[in-house]
Amino acid sequence: MSAPDFISLISTAHNLADRATAAILPHYRMPLAIENKLATAGMSGFDPVTAADQAAERAIRAGLAEYFPDHAIEGEEYGRSGDSDWRWIIDPIDGTRAFMMGMLSWGTLIGLAHEERPIFGMMAQPYTGERFWNDTTSAYWRGPHGSGVLKTRSCASLSGAVMACTDPSMFKSEAEHAPFRRLAAAVKMSRFGGDCYAYAMLAAGNIDLVVEASLQSYDVAALIPIVERAGGRMTTWDGGPALAGGRIIAAGDPTLHAQAMALLQQ
Amino acid sequence: MSAPDFISLISTAHNLADRATAAILPHYRMPLAIENKLATAGMSGFDPVTAADQAAERAIRAGLAEYFPDHAIEGEEYGRSGDSDWRWIIDPIDGTRAFMMGMLSWGTLIGLAHEERPIFGMMAQPYTGERFWNDTTSAYWRGPHGSGVLKTRSCASLSGAVMACTDPSMFKSEAEHAPFRRLAAAVKMSRFGGDCYAYAMLAAGNIDLVVEASLQSYDVAALIPIVERAGGRMTTWDGGPALAGGRIIAAGDPTLHAQAMALLQQ
Repeated sequence: MSAPDFISLISTAHNLADRATAAILPHYRMPLAIENKLATAGMSGFDPVTAADQAAERAIRAGLAEYFPDHAIEGEEYGRSGDSDWRWIIDPIDGTRAFMMGMLSWGTLIGLAHEERPIFGMMAQPYTGERFWNDTTSAYWRGPHGSGVLKTRSCASLSGAVMACTDPSMFKSEAEHAPFRRLAAAVKMSRFGGDCYAYAMLAAGNIDLVVEASLQSYDVAALIPIVERAGGRMTTWDGGPALAGGRIIAAGDPTLHAQAMALLQQ
Repeated sequence: MSAPDFISLISTAHNLADRATAAILPHYRMPLAIENKLATAGMSGFDPVTAADQAAERAIRAGLAEYFPDHAIEGEEYGRSGDSDWRWIIDPIDGTRAFMMGMLSWGTLIGLAHEERPIFGMMAQPYTGERFWNDTTSAYWRGPHGSGVLKTRSCASLSGAVMACTDPSMFKSEAEHAPFRRLAAAVKMSRFGGDCYAYAMLAAGNIDLVVEASLQSYDVAALIPIVERAGGRMTTWDGGPALAGGRIIAAGDPTLHAQAMALLQQ
């Protein structure tokens, strides 16, 4: 199977993100009373996140079936389908809790891996209309106030670093939580509540470190190439490939990545 | 001094928020390299948050001097000025850490108190263009995808509640942290990372509880009337007036407010 060119990849991904946005926004911040009326109308176990998640993944899969019918797909809601060296890895709503709360840190993740290497990703924030993506050399953004190239910032020491992490509940054991706390004590500032948006802001040069655990492949596949093409590094806590998820560290500055990894492993 | 009518208040507040937006956005997500160049050009101790905060507060104060020259003003950056029963209480950037990280939970808070009672508030999110405000009977929102009335949702029991809190570092002592943890263990879901945006989402019926500490008057003054006109309650942890800040609890459902307060005081 031949490689798709990046111009097609990017325009296809924007189209897939448009479809996901159309599927998701009608459910976002919808009052529960209205959702419950829909539930009474025949959908049992109906909840806005599940409905939006499933509708968006179906919309993305329908688009992929048109553009790349031979590619494999792995999605949060409908699992794996197809058999190919080219695999799309999608999370229709990354950050479902933020979505439920009406916050803005969630997004639609659309990634493409070739022979287990992440080569392309797009993060879309449907409410703000922001998009973040990469090609072979660089990463890019567009939003309501402009567009441009994503570039991580230099930050050569932990004492000057700003760190993000979605939630302390990600750390399932003291073996995970203790190294995180060690890092949190060493950096200049650490805040919770990031979801995929924190990785986009790392790529954009506003955050220096994202350190998380309990991640799935679909939580990270689209973000890895965006972070790396913007100049950052994204691996597991022991420096392995991030594609399978698990314990993940992303740093805008490769020097900082090495320092943070050393402290995590102490 | 006569009372301003609400139609003038609301149109003035939108104008003040427009001015603050114009002052803030040029500093938001600006690469540090560019900010440092400005610093080298003669501004020592320059940082983007301080610059944006100060410029926005000056812009709001200039507007108030035109519209309500006799009113008093209390702002985060420039303190108190004027002497009147009518006091504007403003926080040009509530959520400075979120602002620094490029996240979206920060906002501009513009409140008005009369004889120490908060009567009007506006929260503006400059990047998304969202606005949240109140009049004497209701609260309202407008944003990139529409506009409408803000209405809190019913949630009569802690076990069904979704709670937000900006950061665990708000709790300065075990006497504050222990009651919060008790509440976090009793609710359905609790997340960090809210800033003023969490109160807006509580007013909009997406979040049931916001429980915080170490707040200043300018962190809450604008939010109280929005939350209360939307149907919620906002007080200190012991049920007193929220205007002075400190330990604050906001609930969308007054029944839930009483339950949560009881658990905090146990």
